[in-house]
Amino acid sequence: MTIIITAFERSPDGGKGLARDTRVRWALEEVGQPYEVRLVSFHAMKEPAHLGLHPFGQIPTYEDGDLVLFETGAIVLHLAERHAGLLPDDTNARARAITWMFAALNTVEPPILELVTVKFLEGDKPWSTERLPLVRDRIRHRLDQLSARLGEADWLDGAFSAGDLMMVSVLLRLRLSGILDEFPNLAAYVARGEARPAYRRAFAAQWAINAKPPAG
Amino acid sequence: MTIIITAFERSPDGGKGLARDTRVRWALEEVGQPYEVRLVSFHAMKEPAHLGLHPFGQIPTYEDGDLVLFETGAIVLHLAERHAGLLPDDTNARARAITWMFAALNTVEPPILELVTVKFLEGDKPWSTERLPLVRDRIRHRLDQLSARLGEADWLDGAFSAGDLMMVSVLLRLRLSGILDEFPNLAAYVARGEARPAYRRAFAAQWAINAKPPAG
Repeated sequence: MTIIITAFERSPDGGKGLARDTRVRWALEEVGQPYEVRLVSFHAMKEPAHLGLHPFGQIPTYEDGDLVLFETGAIVLHLAERHAGLLPDDTNARARAITWMFAALNTVEPPILELVTVKFLEGDKPWSTERLPLVRDRIRHRLDQLSARLGEADWLDGAFSAGDLMMVSVLLRLRLSGILDEFPNLAAYVARGEARPAYRRAFAAQWAINAKPPAG
Repeated sequence: MTIIITAFERSPDGGKGLARDTRVRWALEEVGQPYEVRLVSFHAMKEPAHLGLHPFGQIPTYEDGDLVLFETGAIVLHLAERHAGLLPDDTNARARAITWMFAALNTVEPPILELVTVKFLEGDKPWSTERLPLVRDRIRHRLDQLSARLGEADWLDGAFSAGDLMMVSVLLRLRLSGILDEFPNLAAYVARGEARPAYRRAFAAQWAINAKPPAG
């Protein structure tokens, strides 16, 4: 059975690897599963065919025979549970790795996504400039706590896991903001993630689609 | 082995059941596992002992012998995987139920939590009044999509699952805003969740702690 994921026909980030398909590509590369990609336009994402796969009209989706999944966290967890490479064998360590997946998505990413709100969704509002430092400070607060927990370790809990894959992916969104560099151990942690061969293959695959010049 | 969770010594919501320990209590009640509660003050949540359990200084945490977990999603999933009652037996249906857990926490809850930002964290800012309708519209956009997917079904994907437990818990945060009532099928869905005996036991347990008058 061929695994099929969806991705932006053209990512808004121009190939920086921040669209969520990169997270799924990375997981697929870590567990050594081949996959195909179906590209979706912004228009098609809001059409019934795609909404049947993803009720919130986003990418990526995951199809494997009869199984259709959405939500990056669920797709990565599904792959991690079925294939070796992203979760430890020990039951307790496994539950802790999954905890870091949820922490990345539910505790660390939401304040980071507020940067998108303040800059893009509300970039034309009169409060935008004054609000930005508040949003940045809320991100710093979370990163302070994460940095304290990581300390000098390579990964969040023992060996590299799906929890690290997700946390590195979330932190990568901060690179352009300059905030990540305020936390040297977190910047080094992200760099370790990016240096993994599986990440590099995933990044290259999305780059090949998103960084090419427009056709015609 | 006794399961121990942490909860607010006194919840900021005064017993409305919106603190995240209610989600874990509900899951424990659904799977029929007894548990004990250790109450934590706002001060103690930021102290090293609690930060050792929860790096972001929040509640709930979960302790079961040597295993320590944080993140409500991870705790509920851990319980759902180990005990019957919160995940279907069929492998694909199980993956889809877990998808709804992530959708609740990562796609539906973040715009809802912005209500807290606009009303409390930024309630004294000059833009607060003008920004509120934007935040409310972003919530409505998600709820439109969720409402379309749920349709006339009782639960999101077949029988009640951990995905519904999490989605109902997230939507409950909207009750006071009036937005939930704009979507009758979602309001009925939440009411079905609240009517479950396990939810009622969980609610009553947190109410007993949070709704009593201050001592002295």
